[in-house]
Amino acid sequence: MNGSSKNPYGPNPCDYLSNVNSFRIIDTTLREGEQFANAFFTLDFKVKIAKALDEFGVDYIEMTSPVASEQSRTELETVCKLGLKTKILTHIRCNINDAKVAVNCGVDGVNVFIGTSQFMRKYSHGKDMSFITNAAVQVIEFVKSKGLEIRFSTEDSFRSDIVDLLNIYTTVDKIGVNRIGIADTVGGGNPRQVYDLVRTIKSCVSCDIETHFHNDTGCAIANAYTALEAGSKYIDTTVLGIGERNGIVPLGGFMARMVVSSPDYVKSKYKLTKIRELETLVAETVKVNIPFNNPITGFCAFTHKAGIHAKAILANPSTYEIINPADFGLSRYIHFASRLTGWNAIKARVEQLNLDLTDDQIKEITKKIKHLGDVRPLSIDDVDSIIKDFHADTTKIELAKEDQDKKRQALESSAAKDGDNSEDHQQKKRKLDN
Amino acid sequence: MNGSSKNPYGPNPCDYLSNVNSFRIIDTTLREGEQFANAFFTLDFKVKIAKALDEFGVDYIEMTSPVASEQSRTELETVCKLGLKTKILTHIRCNINDAKVAVNCGVDGVNVFIGTSQFMRKYSHGKDMSFITNAAVQVIEFVKSKGLEIRFSTEDSFRSDIVDLLNIYTTVDKIGVNRIGIADTVGGGNPRQVYDLVRTIKSCVSCDIETHFHNDTGCAIANAYTALEAGSKYIDTTVLGIGERNGIVPLGGFMARMVVSSPDYVKSKYKLTKIRELETLVAETVKVNIPFNNPITGFCAFTHKAGIHAKAILANPSTYEIINPADFGLSRYIHFASRLTGWNAIKARVEQLNLDLTDDQIKEITKKIKHLGDVRPLSIDDVDSIIKDFHADTTKIELAKEDQDKKRQALESSAAKDGDNSEDHQQKKRKLDN
Repeated sequence: MNGSSKNPYGPNPCDYLSNVNSFRIIDTTLREGEQFANAFFTLDFKVKIAKALDEFGVDYIEMTSPVASEQSRTELETVCKLGLKTKILTHIRCNINDAKVAVNCGVDGVNVFIGTSQFMRKYSHGKDMSFITNAAVQVIEFVKSKGLEIRFSTEDSFRSDIVDLLNIYTTVDKIGVNRIGIADTVGGGNPRQVYDLVRTIKSCVSCDIETHFHNDTGCAIANAYTALEAGSKYIDTTVLGIGERNGIVPLGGFMARMVVSSPDYVKSKYKLTKIRELETLVAETVKVNIPFNNPITGFCAFTHKAGIHAKAILANPSTYEIINPADFGLSRYIHFASRLTGWNAIKARVEQLNLDLTDDQIKEITKKIKHLGDVRPLSIDDVDSIIKDFHADTTKIELAKEDQDKKRQALESSAAKDGDNSEDHQQKKRKLDN
Repeated sequence: MNGSSKNPYGPNPCDYLSNVNSFRIIDTTLREGEQFANAFFTLDFKVKIAKALDEFGVDYIEMTSPVASEQSRTELETVCKLGLKTKILTHIRCNINDAKVAVNCGVDGVNVFIGTSQFMRKYSHGKDMSFITNAAVQVIEFVKSKGLEIRFSTEDSFRSDIVDLLNIYTTVDKIGVNRIGIADTVGGGNPRQVYDLVRTIKSCVSCDIETHFHNDTGCAIANAYTALEAGSKYIDTTVLGIGERNGIVPLGGFMARMVVSSPDYVKSKYKLTKIRELETLVAETVKVNIPFNNPITGFCAFTHKAGIHAKAILANPSTYEIINPADFGLSRYIHFASRLTGWNAIKARVEQLNLDLTDDQIKEITKKIKHLGDVRPLSIDDVDSIIKDFHADTTKIELAKEDQDKKRQALESSAAKDGDNSEDHQQKKRKLDN
């Protein structure tokens, strides 16, 4: 918080279990993302996105259960055969039949889930905690016997009884589950609540923790960050956050968060310049526009408008920019065509146009621009033509003045030569002086 | 966290300074929002949005400084004369000349700001802390002498030195400032950092605290919520979050957050059904689309797709919905036209279509739908026609069966009447039996 060399947005030194500098990404665009309203994914698309995610550097890719449909199984098997560096997981219900199908698809691991809140137990599967525990133990032991990674997750964890959660998590931890999952299935969680729950669970288990946050109340990215602070290591993301309802933690937005807190780790581990390509691919496939206010890739994410902002950004971009657009292969834009502009922004434009004007002249131009900006929206062309007209006028005056000076010099030198002091010469000189 | 009557997402009882149940909104669409790349606001628009915000029930409206341009002043004066219930503020630089103009525009209060981080002091205004303190005291005393409300805010608070912050805040608190403002100007803050800073400052001042969060790292809503937990009372919002770069806390998303944590307060204080109208008005004016994943008003915010979700939502919407769409004048949608559908979703559709089919028949239809969904994207018409074809076939079979039964009955009754046991009658009977 001292604004000097220390990163004021870095990990909190009090969080000794923090994974802010060592987190992993489980991208679930091909599972949670498939549950997005507009998603119809073809085999071709799944292969393309899996390769792109691999190139970006996500640690795991989670895919739809092979039990969901015949095609889902074919797609899973095909992606497993691509030979990607990224590990492939599939997400299945907590029952042995689903598990038997899953382990034969070539996956590196299986992500099982079951609802543990009273809502889920009553309205989703209708089972009690002892049934859930038995099913979990059976599935985990089976998947482990096949030499595969296994995660056990409770759905709707934040509306589950804490005693139930600790019971089941410690039970599966004891039999050697690789990860447990904590899920804010309805997206109602808030950051400090997330911190408390993850921290408490972390103190009771030795396995890794994965967290899954929906975005219904706009807190998904912040909740993911806070979960890392509390000791979660794996974060579920999807490209653009697509998923059930308004989705989950978006990969790009999460990278915006993490590159600010943990710049060295993030820049060395993930290929950030691929974010825009990934988002464009998914947006086109599911037929949505990239939101105007998307972190990083929203059209205005690096646009600066108010005069006071433009001035400081020109002096040092970090004044109003916590993310360097170049890290993502993007560039900033200083908006200067509006009534809110300032003379520093206009000066920068004058320099871009390679024109030579004094600060006083630029201040005068700025007034004209602000005045026109009060009347109607301004385009860049509007501003440029005001600048150029002013410059042309100034140049004309200067040229005329130069011309005059030359004539006077010529006259004086000829008069000096001729010793001419006639009325005619005096008249010519007076004319030039006016 | 017990899933029963207690709200698991309600205020944390440990936060004894929490304003989660008593927060206020300062909407700055007409100031911060005007700094959005695409914004060109006319007088007519400003009047319209001010009236709509008043009707929604925001507590304050903040407007652009009257010093920014002539038209800005006219617009401010016009909105002040509308006689709204909502109080009108203007946002000015911390200098006496701006303040002198502001107090003569008819405002209820003045929001002054000045940068206090090393970045701001070096690259924005170039002043030191003692200059800043003197300017603050002068402006605050002047505005108070006019009987108006006054807020003093530091820009870029999270990169400012904590000693500088506490010095200036305690100084302005002593001379009777109404509110101090804490601003995450570059949008890099994270929730627990926000909690710590707000909590520390709150323990040193007696005035109210206003907070302003940019969304560069996707944490604006969560940061606002956490600031309330720590004792901030006023949150700055704009409609759709429009502002510099990718903007600030969006009014609609913030309402999504707050209605979950504090439903009674929010529903009694704000007219939630107006959110969509406000967002549409602003989106049209600044020429952007409402983001597909916007909380509440995004097109899929209340759409449920996976079979397992659809089943539970039909039994009890709260299973997968933490926000009731009806509170915002909206409705939910069960997506049933995809390979991920389940028979409970299809059953609900069969019932909507007023058709009479058994569960076994619906399960058979569901298989056909999932099979077609593997081949290509499905429309509602596709699903409906599969359902109706199946139903027509079944009905035909049933009608044929009824017809057959009638014929057999007729035949048997005629045979009984006639005592007919001829080869001809036996043949007719065999034919009907096949």
